Parts: sequence; structure tokens; C-alpha cells
Amino acid sequence: MKFGVIGYKGRMGKLILEVFQQKGHQAVLLVEKDEEKFYEKPEVIIDFSAPEAIENTINLGKKFNSKLVIGTTGLNKQKIDLLKEASQNIAVIQSYNFSIGINIILEILEKYSKLFSAWDCEIIETHHSMKKDKPSGTALLLKKSLNREVLIHSLRIGNIPGDHTILFSNDGELINISHRAISRNVFAIGALKAAEWIITKKSGLFTFRDIIKEELL
Amino acid sequence: MKFGVIGYKGRMGKLILEVFQQKGHQAVLLVEKDEEKFYEKPEVIIDFSAPEAIENTINLGKKFNSKLVIGTTGLNKQKIDLLKEASQNIAVIQSYNFSIGINIILEILEKYSKLFSAWDCEIIETHHSMKKDKPSGTALLLKKSLNREVLIHSLRIGNIPGDHTILFSNDGELINISHRAISRNVFAIGALKAAEWIITKKSGLFTFRDIIKEELL
Amino acid sequence: MKFGVIGYKGRMGKLILEVFQQKGHQAVLLVEKDEEKFYEKPEVIIDFSAPEAIENTINLGKKFNSKLVIGTTGLNKQKIDLLKEASQNIAVIQSYNFSIGINIILEILEKYSKLFSAWDCEIIETHHSMKKDKPSGTALLLKKSLNREVLIHSLRIGNIPGDHTILFSNDGELINISHRAISRNVFAIGALKAAEWIITKKSGLFTFRDIIKEELL
Amino acid sequence: MKFGVIGYKGRMGKLILEVFQQKGHQAVLLVEKDEEKFYEKPEVIIDFSAPEAIENTINLGKKFNSKLVIGTTGLNKQKIDLLKEASQNIAVIQSYNFSIGINIILEILEKYSKLFSAWDCEIIETHHSMKKDKPSGTALLLKKSLNREVLIHSLRIGNIPGDHTILFSNDGELINISHRAISRNVFAIGALKAAEWIITKKSGLFTFRDIIKEELL
Repeated sequence: MKFGVIGYKGRMGKLILEVFQQKGHQAVLLVEKDEEKFYEKPEVIIDFSAPEAIENTINLGKKFNSKLVIGTTGLNKQKIDLLKEASQNIAVIQSYNFSIGINIILEILEKYSKLFSAWDCEIIETHHSMKKDKPSGTALLLKKSLNREVLIHSLRIGNIPGDHTILFSNDGELINISHRAISRNVFAIGALKAAEWIITKKSGLFTFRDIIKEELL
Repeated sequence: MKFGVIGYKGRMGKLILEVFQQKGHQAVLLVEKDEEKFYEKPEVIIDFSAPEAIENTINLGKKFNSKLVIGTTGLNKQKIDLLKEASQNIAVIQSYNFSIGINIILEILEKYSKLFSAWDCEIIETHHSMKKDKPSGTALLLKKSLNREVLIHSLRIGNIPGDHTILFSNDGELINISHRAISRNVFAIGALKAAEWIITKKSGLFTFRDIIKEELL
Repeated sequence: MKFGVIGYKGRMGKLILEVFQQKGHQAVLLVEKDEEKFYEKPEVIIDFSAPEAIENTINLGKKFNSKLVIGTTGLNKQKIDLLKEASQNIAVIQSYNFSIGINIILEILEKYSKLFSAWDCEIIETHHSMKKDKPSGTALLLKKSLNREVLIHSLRIGNIPGDHTILFSNDGELINISHRAISRNVFAIGALKAAEWIITKKSGLFTFRDIIKEELL
Repeated sequence: MKFGVIGYKGRMGKLILEVFQQKGHQAVLLVEKDEEKFYEKPEVIIDFSAPEAIENTINLGKKFNSKLVIGTTGLNKQKIDLLKEASQNIAVIQSYNFSIGINIILEILEKYSKLFSAWDCEIIETHHSMKKDKPSGTALLLKKSLNREVLIHSLRIGNIPGDHTILFSNDGELINISHRAISRNVFAIGALKAAEWIITKKSGLFTFRDIIKEELL
């Protein structure tokens, strides 16, 4: 696969390059704020950089007829609308969380949470002590997928990349569903999975959950 | 609900009596090997005793037009056939595991295991040191629902009623789904759930999984 | 061992009777608010009832020259002073927590917490949803043994008898020390251990920690 | 601190350079099989490379009067004897495991295991699927510190850097002591701690456990 990376010098950009190249894929377009290295037309362009970059990313996608994988967070409605419009001609996958495991868990919780309506439920999330926001965005996604009020307990200790645990308990049982990010390259691995999936599509706006739904068919 | 208990002096029989009566249900038929206390026609009869008892249980069901909840283990084909035949006229629910949580997990694993085909998977089960069989029957059910070869690690320590953990891991993530039986009355609670469900049915042979499937609709 | 139980009809009293008798010990004195069944002079008297009972318990101890195991919570200074005075002639063991495992963990944390001074630390405790107080008394004991400020996260779900977890994390490691009460008779088992220990003593006021300290010698 | 690294191009050598430099320490001697970059006399030399390197490392230590931190595994008696002899003039710290947390746990288990003599005990260790040896060396160290026969369960899944869990259970309780290596630089962090400690010593042969024992005084 020939791919491009937007923000290739940033933390996520570097990880994406590393993970994609390890699997034998070829970086043919490397973009930074004031720099563009072009070698060849990319089949897919990956952007996990900043909202300001999105217009340029879309233009590159249109110009090269490349599919887009968008993991940028903090996109406002106007930017999302731009992606929607572009997706009429090129396939776009956009998500706020590219962890495969978290997306599977969200799918399971959404589908099965009604079986747990009579069970108590609380969430624990643990991250490194430098993480400022509480609770984590992922914990909020988990809560939303449960479709009920649940307490979220946030621990900030050491250098934990990210643990999330959902606990259900009734009179006689305790069920624990937990997810651990082993390293910070989880999202780059998810971006690769998304890239491999989106290049099979002609057009349309997708999310990471669509990959999981398709695999379930 | 008016209910009967077969083997009411056994360990499970006592638990069933306790759990059902705590919820205000009325024991109107109590049966032991050489004893039958009859007070009133039961709506449902619960049998978690021994395979030898099953013919008598079926006859009582037919006589009183009661639904049956059968948790006896070790039923051979001939006994299962008897239940099938009886279920043409009275509703019967028969399962080898009445834990609500384990049945939900089995349902999830069966449905989602293909999403984990590229992940490694192993199972850990922990029970009290008096438990002789390794691995536990529940661990084997979990393995079967995964539809692949998985290692099962069996711990036998202290007085643990029963913990089961399924671990999935790939390059960047670890997912842990675990179930803890808090006390030994888990199965009595499941039997109550089954009883409350089966009295709404006219006839037919059901398993505990049918309750969960119906709740998902 | 011949033993007496104060408050033998209460929840803890019943458990103590059950656990002690299972090990072949002989109940020779059974006391309730307005009742006293005396069969024989007890070697040890167990009181896990209410603060109001303590004077009578002490008097029985003096009268029969019995050792005392006191697990009553909420004793004020005046009652503790009465125990101190009595302990000049009879051996008394008094503690607010008779779980063997928790007392071992407290001992370990007190001794080793300074090794963790550069690590982050937080505590999670999980109990059944009927438990009103947050955090649990045991979590507060754990915090005290750490001798530093730590966040305590309290979960109240299902029917959990009591889980406590202490987490330490630094730049590269996570250590988790956790304790699970498997059933509510943990404290009765601890009371038995205390009774077997105290009958070897002549006089003096001891705590459960003294048993552990002695075993370490 | 001015430090030297033996095997600076290897996996551990690179991590050591990264971790030490991040804390502001200065690399003044870099050695590879056929290369030696010398800038200045090092206060301490770190060697986590291969047994063949040890003679040269010792000679460098003697020449520059540098302390030595030796994490090389597979040293035979003759090489250990060379370190002993060198330690008469220069301080040397040698260990097979430089994880701070594991060494604290070993210390605790050795000291407290007799309190658990009546409890059942088993060990679980989980590592990435590429790890060939079963059980892990660390699990064997844990078992040794318990001074009794214990079952070790080895899981090999995904990309786990290394989890170790010791479980104790009796009739009413379960205690779980577990350690997670968050990333592979745990040992480099431990090497730094060892370096900072050994530069305060004049001479003598020490192990990582001595650091912990000294901190406990």
C-alpha cells in the first residue's frame, strides 16, 4: 500500500510511519506544516494531526484521488461537513478512537447493555499521572454505550498508557470487562487496519465501528 | 409463584428454597427420595437433583400441568428424550449452567469471537482446592463458544466459588473478560430467573440461552 | 477449646458458633441481651456484639478467669480503659479488623511503604450496594498504614463482601496488592485464630497485629 | 553523573542511554564489540550486554576507577569470581533482575511467606507470544522466594512486556500481589537507580536487593 502521512514529524505521525513501514507499506507523501515531500500518488492519506490541517488533507485527497483516514480530534461541525462533502467522491473513515479493542467493547456494550439493566455498573479508568482530563474520553464513550448513569472512577498513576474497566454486579455475580493499551502505538495499529479497509471502498463517510460491523456479517 | 422443589433437602434444594422464598414465592411441593410433601398444585417444579429423579419429576409435571426447570447434570440421551417428549405438552427449560452472567458471556463470545481471530487467547479458571475436575465444565463451555483451540489454566486455591477469565491480546492491546461467582447461590438465582420466565410459556423445550436471546430482541 | 459467645443470636454470633463448632470446639456459654445459657466454664469468651455489652463480658471473663476476644466496633476510651484494666489479670485481644489477610497487608504496607515514596499510589475498595459508609473502615486503615495522602475510590455494586486494592505505579511498573473477602465468615475465621492464640497468654492487652508479629519472629 | 555504556548499540544499551540522558546524565564512554568512543573518565560503567564482554568491562573499570553496574545474564562462576576480585578495589553491583518492583516483591515474599504457610499459593505469569522460555526467570525467582512448591501458570499472548501474579487463598480470603512491566525500559530505570546508588560506595560486590535493604533501614 502506498500511503501519505499528514504531520509526519509529530508523535502520532512518527508512530504511524513506523507501524505502516514495519508491515511493508510505502510512505510516498510526507506533510508537515511548512513542508511537503511528494514521491508518488498515495492510495490512502492518514491524518491524526490538528484540525487546522484538515482542509489541506481533503484537497490532497481530491487531487490524488486518495482515500482518507482521519483520527484528528476536536473537529467542529464545519470540518465534519467538509469531510462529508468530500466523501461523495472519495472514501473517508473518521473516528475519535482507533483502538480495535475499545471499538469491539463499545459494540458489545451497546448491544448487550440491556441484559445488565438489573445489575449495578461502575467504570474505572487508569492513566499516567500526566493526563490532565478526568474522566478519559474513552470512559465517556463507554458510559454513552451503556446508555445509563454510571459512576466513573479516574486513577492517575505512574506511566499507565490507558486501562479501562467496566464492572457489572448483581446478587451473586461480578462481570469485569477490561481493556489495557499495552503501548502508545495502539492507535497507529488501528489506523493501519482502517487504511487497509478503506482502500476497498469507492466513496462514503465511515467510522471505525463500520469495520467491526462488517466483520460481524 | 407457587413452586415445587425436587431434592429439597440437598445442597441446591435448600438454596433454591431460600432464594425463592426470600422473593415471596410459595413452596407448595417438597420432594425427597422417599418423601413427598404436597400442599397445593405448583405452577413450576424445580429439579437440580440427580438423573434418577427425572422420570418422577416429569410425571409430577404432567400430573399438575406444571412447567419444569431442570438443572440436573449428567442427563443421558434417553432422559433428554423424555424431557423433549414431555415438552410437547408442558414448557420445560433445561440447562447445564444457570449462571446468568456466564450465559451472557457465552452469548457474547459466540457472536464476537470472529473479531478476535487474529488475537491470541487463553483462559484462566480458579476454584476452591476441593474441586477435583480440571478444567471446570464452565471453562469448557467458554472454550467451545470461542470455536478455536485455547489453553485453559486451572488454579485450585482456598475457597473460591468460581472465577473464569478469558484473555485476548494482540500487538497493542489486552482485553480481559472475567466472571466471578460471588457465592454458591448464583445458580439458585438463575433458577428463579428461569422459573419466572418459563411460567409465561405454554410448551416447548428451552435452554437458559433462550432467555438471554429473548431479552436481546 | 471451650468457648463462650456474647450476642450468639446476632449475625456475627451465629457465624462464630458455626466456624468454631466446625473445628470441633465446644460452645459452653451463650449470651444474648436478656438470656444466659451456661453449661461450663469457658476458656475464652468471644464478643463481636455491641459496645453496651462490654462491661458484662468483662465481668464474665473475670468470674470464669476466661481470656477475651473482642471484635466490637465503636468502643469509646472509657470502654477501652476497662479492657486495659481487666487485661492486668486476664489476657485480652481487641481489634477492629479480624481478617488475617488484611492484617498481613497492613503489616507489609507499614514496613515497606517508604520504598514506594517515589511511586504514585491510589486505593480502590468495592463493596455490596447496601453498604452506606464510604470509604470503608478497612480502606482507611490501609491509608493510615501508608502514612501519606492517597485517593480512595469506593465502588458500591451488587453483593461483593469486600475487595480492597492498593495500586503503586512509577515510570515503568505497576504493583497491585489486593484482598478479597470470599465470604462474610472471614472475621469468624480470624476470631478463631485469635482465640487459639490468646488462650496461650496469661494476661495483657493485645491486638490482631501482635499475632502476625509473633509469627514473623 | 558521567557514565559509560557497554554494548551501546544493542537493545538494552540504547534504552540505558535514553533513560540516563533524559535525567541529565552524560554519556562519556560508548563501547561496542569493535568500537570504543572515549570522551572522558566515567564515574560508572553500565554493562547489560553479553558474558563475553565482562573481562573488558572489568578492565575499563580498573583503568578509570569507575564503579560497575552489571546486568548481563548467564555469567558463569569464573566470570562471577572475576567480578568478586575486582570488587575488592571498585564497587560493583550485579543482579539478574533490575526491576525495582520485582525486587521489592521478592523481599516481601521472603520475609512474609511463612505467614502464608497455611494458605494455598499459585503463580501466573503472562508474556508476549514471542517469549520462548516457560516459566519466566522472574517467576522462578518468585517461587524461590516463597520457599515452597507452587504451580506456575505461563500465558504467552500478544505483546505483554511481563505480568507476574502471586495468589494466596485460604478459607475466607484471597490475596493477590501482582506486578506489571509497563514498558521494556523498566530495567534501564532500575540500572539508573543502581548507578546512582553504587557511586556512593567505595568497593564491594552488591546486588539490587542491597539497595532495597538499605532503604528499609
